[in-house]
Amino acid sequence: MKKRMLTGDRPTGPLHLGHYVGSLANRVALQHTYETFILIADVQALTDHFDRPEFLRRNIREVVKDYLAVGLDPTIVSIAVQSHIPEIAELAIYYLNLVTVARLLRNPTVKDEVRQKGMEETLSAGFLCYPVHQAADITIFCADLVPVGKDQLPMIEQTVEIVRRFHGLYGDGVLVEPHALVGEVDRLVGTDGQTKMSKSLGNAIYLSDDDKTVTDKVMRMYTDPTRIRATDPGHVAGNPVFAYHDAFNPDKAEVANLKTQYEQGKVGDVEVKRRLARCLNLFLAPIRERRMNVNDAMVEAILEEGTRRARCVAEETMKRVRSALLSLP
Amino acid sequence: MKKRMLTGDRPTGPLHLGHYVGSLANRVALQHTYETFILIADVQALTDHFDRPEFLRRNIREVVKDYLAVGLDPTIVSIAVQSHIPEIAELAIYYLNLVTVARLLRNPTVKDEVRQKGMEETLSAGFLCYPVHQAADITIFCADLVPVGKDQLPMIEQTVEIVRRFHGLYGDGVLVEPHALVGEVDRLVGTDGQTKMSKSLGNAIYLSDDDKTVTDKVMRMYTDPTRIRATDPGHVAGNPVFAYHDAFNPDKAEVANLKTQYEQGKVGDVEVKRRLARCLNLFLAPIRERRMNVNDAMVEAILEEGTRRARCVAEETMKRVRSALLSLP
Repeated sequence: MKKRMLTGDRPTGPLHLGHYVGSLANRVALQHTYETFILIADVQALTDHFDRPEFLRRNIREVVKDYLAVGLDPTIVSIAVQSHIPEIAELAIYYLNLVTVARLLRNPTVKDEVRQKGMEETLSAGFLCYPVHQAADITIFCADLVPVGKDQLPMIEQTVEIVRRFHGLYGDGVLVEPHALVGEVDRLVGTDGQTKMSKSLGNAIYLSDDDKTVTDKVMRMYTDPTRIRATDPGHVAGNPVFAYHDAFNPDKAEVANLKTQYEQGKVGDVEVKRRLARCLNLFLAPIRERRMNVNDAMVEAILEEGTRRARCVAEETMKRVRSALLSLP
Repeated sequence: MKKRMLTGDRPTGPLHLGHYVGSLANRVALQHTYETFILIADVQALTDHFDRPEFLRRNIREVVKDYLAVGLDPTIVSIAVQSHIPEIAELAIYYLNLVTVARLLRNPTVKDEVRQKGMEETLSAGFLCYPVHQAADITIFCADLVPVGKDQLPMIEQTVEIVRRFHGLYGDGVLVEPHALVGEVDRLVGTDGQTKMSKSLGNAIYLSDDDKTVTDKVMRMYTDPTRIRATDPGHVAGNPVFAYHDAFNPDKAEVANLKTQYEQGKVGDVEVKRRLARCLNLFLAPIRERRMNVNDAMVEAILEEGTRRARCVAEETMKRVRSALLSLP
C-alpha cells in the first residue's frame, strides 16, 4: 500500500512562484509515489480572516485552478475543502484537552504573534489553538508524510506530541505519527529582495499572471543596489534575479555565464532581467494553457469528489477515535 | 410556539439533592412550558476527566435514570449525548476566532483554575476554551432560556458576546441570544455544612441512595458545633439540618416549631435529624419507585430518540452558520 501524504493551502489568494518552488513542484513530483490529499484550509484561514469569509470563498476556486494548472492530477489526488469535513473540528476539540496553553504559547508562530501584538489584547483563541487544529488535519487523514518548510517543523512536532499523548491515554494504534518531508528549496525570495515571496508583501509573481505582467514585474525587480552602471561589477549573492534564474532557468550553463559576466560588469541588469522574463514565461506557458482548459464546473466536480474521498477517510479515523475515547462508534 | 430551554449535566457521577434543588425541580416544573433539551456533556466532562473516559461513559446511563426518576418526561423532553452531536464541535471551532485569549482568562472559572494551579504548567487548552464550547452548546439549540445558578452567569454573558460578534460580522438572525433563568435557591449546602453539596467533597445525598443510606448520612450530618447537650440553645442559621428541612419538609409549621424549640434547647439534634431523614425518604420514595421501573433498554431508546431530535436542530443551525460564514449549505 502507498504511504499517504497530506498537503494544503489556505485560500487567501492565488498561488505564486514561491508556492511552486516551496511546495507545488514537490507535490506534482510525488503524486504518483504517495496517496495524496490536499486540504484547502478555509476554516483555518478564517482565523485571521474572520471578517472576510466571502474573500476566502472566492479564492477556493482559484486555488484549485492553480493546482490543476501546475499538473496535479485530480484522478489520483484528492482535493478537499476543510469546512466540508466537520470531523476535523470534532477531533480538534478532543485534542484541546491534551495540550496545555503554556505549550501552545511556546509555538514559534503563536509566540511571534504574541510578541508583535501583545497577547492581552488581540490574540484570539482560534489563533492560539491553530496548531491543535493542524494536528487534527494531519492525523484525521492518517498522513505518514507532510511536506513542510523548515519553519513549519514545530507543527509536526506538536502533532507527534498529541498522537503520543492520545495513544498513552487511550491505547495505541488509533492514529498515525506523521513525518515531516522537508523540501530542499525552502522559500523563494520576493521580487523586492526582502524575505519570502508573499501576497501580503506585494512582491509575488502569480502562476496566473499573464506574459506582460510577468515581464513588467521582472523588469521592476530589486537587484544589486550598489551597482549604478551596467559596467560596474555586480553582486550575485542576495540578488533575487539570480535566485530566480537558479530556480527557473533550465539552461544552467547560461546562468553560470550570466553570473560571471554580471560580477565582471559585462552584462547589464536589463539584459539579465529580459532573459529571466523569457524563462519565466516559458515556464508558465504550459501552466497557463492547462489553466485555460479548466472551467468552474470541473472545479466543482473535482472538489466534490475529492472532499467525498477525504471525508470517508476522516469518518473512519473518527470512528476509531470515538471508540477509543467513549466506546462509541 | 414554545420558547426553548437548554439545560444539562456532565456525566461525572449520580445526581444528588443539590442537583434537585438547584436545577432538576425547576426543569420538571418547566418541561411543559418550554420545549426542553437536556445535554449530557460528556465531551466537556473529558476536559478535566480526559484520563477517565470509561467512567464518564458508565455515568451517562445513571444520569438518564436520575432524570426519569425525578419526573422528566422523555416524550416531551429531548435528552441528548453531546459526543453524538459533532456539530457542536464544528460551531465551537468557528467561535474560537471571535474570542480573545485575554477574554477567556477573565472568565471566573478559568481565572480560579489559573490562580490555583498556575497557567504556565497545567491549564489545558480545552479548559481555557470551555466557555466557547458552552456557547456552542447553547446557541446550536437556539435556546432562549438557560436555567443557571448565579455562579454560571458569566457563561451566559460570554455566549451573548459571541452571538453579537457573530451577527456583527456575518449578518443578523443566524443565532438566538440566550437569557439566563436564575433559580431562587441557588445551591444546597453539603451534609458537612461546608460550601455546596458535591460528589468530589463526599458530602452528598444521592437521588439513588436507599432508605438506610439516607438515614445514616442524615444522622452523621454536621449541625451546630457550639451545642454540647440537647438542652443547650442551638443555632439554626448555617445549620445544614435546618437548610434541608426548609428545602424538603413540606410541613412548614413543623419546621417553624422545630426551629423555635431548637433555639430554646427543647429539642435534640437526634430528633431533628430523625424527622429530616423521614422527610427525605418520603420525598425520595416516588423517585426511587420511578427509577426501579426504568431499564437499560429504555435508557438507550430515550437517548437515541433525544439525540436524534437534538441533532436535527443542531444541523439546521449549522446550515445557517455555514451559509453565513462561507456561503456553504
